Amino acid sequence: MTVNRQWLLARRPTDKAVRGDFEYRESEIPDASNLAPGHVLIRNQLFLHAPTMRNWMDPASNSFYPTVGLGTPMLATSAGVIVKSNNPRFAEGQRVTAITAWEDYTILNADVWPVRPVADELSLVEAQGPVGMNALTAYMGVTQVGRPKAGDLAVVSGAAGSTGSVAGQILKILGCRTIGIAGSQDKCDRLVSELGFDVAINYKTQDVEKTLREIAPEGVNFFFDNVGGDMLQAVVENIAKFATIVLCGQIAGYNDGVPVPGPRNMMRLIYGSVRAEGFLLGDFEEQIPEGTRQILEWIRSGKMVHREDIRSGFDSLPDTFSDLFTGNNDGTLMVVTDEAARTRP
Amino acid sequence: MTVNRQWLLARRPTDKAVRGDFEYRESEIPDASNLAPGHVLIRNQLFLHAPTMRNWMDPASNSFYPTVGLGTPMLATSAGVIVKSNNPRFAEGQRVTAITAWEDYTILNADVWPVRPVADELSLVEAQGPVGMNALTAYMGVTQVGRPKAGDLAVVSGAAGSTGSVAGQILKILGCRTIGIAGSQDKCDRLVSELGFDVAINYKTQDVEKTLREIAPEGVNFFFDNVGGDMLQAVVENIAKFATIVLCGQIAGYNDGVPVPGPRNMMRLIYGSVRAEGFLLGDFEEQIPEGTRQILEWIRSGKMVHREDIRSGFDSLPDTFSDLFTGNNDGTLMVVTDEAARTRP
Repeated sequence: MTVNRQWLLARRPTDKAVRGDFEYRESEIPDASNLAPGHVLIRNQLFLHAPTMRNWMDPASNSFYPTVGLGTPMLATSAGVIVKSNNPRFAEGQRVTAITAWEDYTILNADVWPVRPVADELSLVEAQGPVGMNALTAYMGVTQVGRPKAGDLAVVSGAAGSTGSVAGQILKILGCRTIGIAGSQDKCDRLVSELGFDVAINYKTQDVEKTLREIAPEGVNFFFDNVGGDMLQAVVENIAKFATIVLCGQIAGYNDGVPVPGPRNMMRLIYGSVRAEGFLLGDFEEQIPEGTRQILEWIRSGKMVHREDIRSGFDSLPDTFSDLFTGNNDGTLMVVTDEAARTRP
Repeated sequence: MTVNRQWLLARRPTDKAVRGDFEYRESEIPDASNLAPGHVLIRNQLFLHAPTMRNWMDPASNSFYPTVGLGTPMLATSAGVIVKSNNPRFAEGQRVTAITAWEDYTILNADVWPVRPVADELSLVEAQGPVGMNALTAYMGVTQVGRPKAGDLAVVSGAAGSTGSVAGQILKILGCRTIGIAGSQDKCDRLVSELGFDVAINYKTQDVEKTLREIAPEGVNFFFDNVGGDMLQAVVENIAKFATIVLCGQIAGYNDGVPVPGPRNMMRLIYGSVRAEGFLLGDFEEQIPEGTRQILEWIRSGKMVHREDIRSGFDSLPDTFSDLFTGNNDGTLMVVTDEAARTRP
């Protein structure tokens, strides 16, 4: 590789992101001969596609999420190798996960941006899959934010997705009864047979609010919500006293251009003494090592499964991203570069 | 008094409650000669009007709040005297606060329904005013649910109301900077001059969202919301990272017939790591003595003021209730019975 391939954000999508929203460019590899203190040069080899990246494509607002500048490389959660380092915490050749961008090479200040070493026993796929950003987000959302009680009736929306599938399994491990909501019969079957959910609801063929009322007449004690909109409404209508709602994502609204309404009838939250709480993985930086260790232990002891959907080819980055919003991914969606694909990273 | 005067709910209001929604009836005084164990007969002397009573007039739903049966006396927060007791915790002549109804005499099971003794040094007005349901609701919402930090920028909606005025003063005592939102210039002036708010916003003449952005560019850390709807939206648009929203009331929607939408853009709650939590005073039954003691201490030491709006006449109950929704009350709105009005209770 003698050039730095990049996918730049060329225009802001108003609906789903499509290839035409990005511009392919071949730049020079960044000059790392004189790195500023704290900075590292990373060779990106794997990109994780997460739904919230769609928000980063929106115009700057008075909200909190980052906005990718037009004409600059699309930000992404990635894994790769330190090629050059002027940071005492990172050595050349070290494998890391980081927030870099859709490009081959990224220079960044590792004291400011998240860059985390990948343990020797893990592949890059494992580092961004079973113990990657989505899985750790599920872990923190359940154990640190939501803190369910054993015996709780717990619902997960987007349950077949990368975060939801982990959240559901952790809830089961913690002793909850689990109901997963997904968008196809195939996914629903898998929620029960593979991921251990007690019940699955197909929101494309079933009325979620009514079905929940039938199968959970005592109400929902815990809701891990990746979807928002109608899903949030349907569960709020069935919420139990003293319930907890973990606000993890609002994928229902990411392509809409207008914000999704929150749940109608906030009175249910008042009279129900319900807590609804949003969070980001970055709020729990200190708990990441423990979360990583715990998830790996669950996986190795057979208590948890993880499914990856790995695509290859730097060229495919914009196209594969849209699969997140059409339900065409089958597990944590990652793209490995052509070079890296030759040896499973 | 030889009859039991009652105001029955005759039909369910679809907008504001009006006198025609109620039916006046004179019944026999309940026979207390053979009270069931745990039961007491209470002579009601004072009725507190709280906005949430409007919700109790709605049809039964799958929500949690109580529904008053058609043709039965309207439920109300009250104060009065135990006339007859078959409950070891209550003696005849003892003054109490309770959830009774718009009637002169109520029999209820004091082991099931909330009945609380009134301390000797308090009048019935004080028991339902400065340390009544609304004031204690503010106390629990701030100190037990919200738990603000000193230095927080705190906003209170419905700040001139019975609950909001107490919440704002407690926030100030705890070291917050306080912004109050109210619906008239007169009330706004009073928020600052009498209740110690740092700033007041008149939502009828000012754009709340825009004004907050100007006077709180760092964002709102703490929101005590009595109103919901547009007020909740305006504050959410200005919410700071790691903020807390205490969901106390949704008076904006109580007369609408349809539930008020929750805040749009729940993403702000996610990326802001914001907690929104509803509650009821009854969740904190054990903390009520301590809250009562603390509020009285603040009042006696001059740190807190309390304003009562006391009307008299059992006949006026339905008409005075509607003043809550037109802003025509000036402090905690209570109605004392004609008999009781002769000696300030």
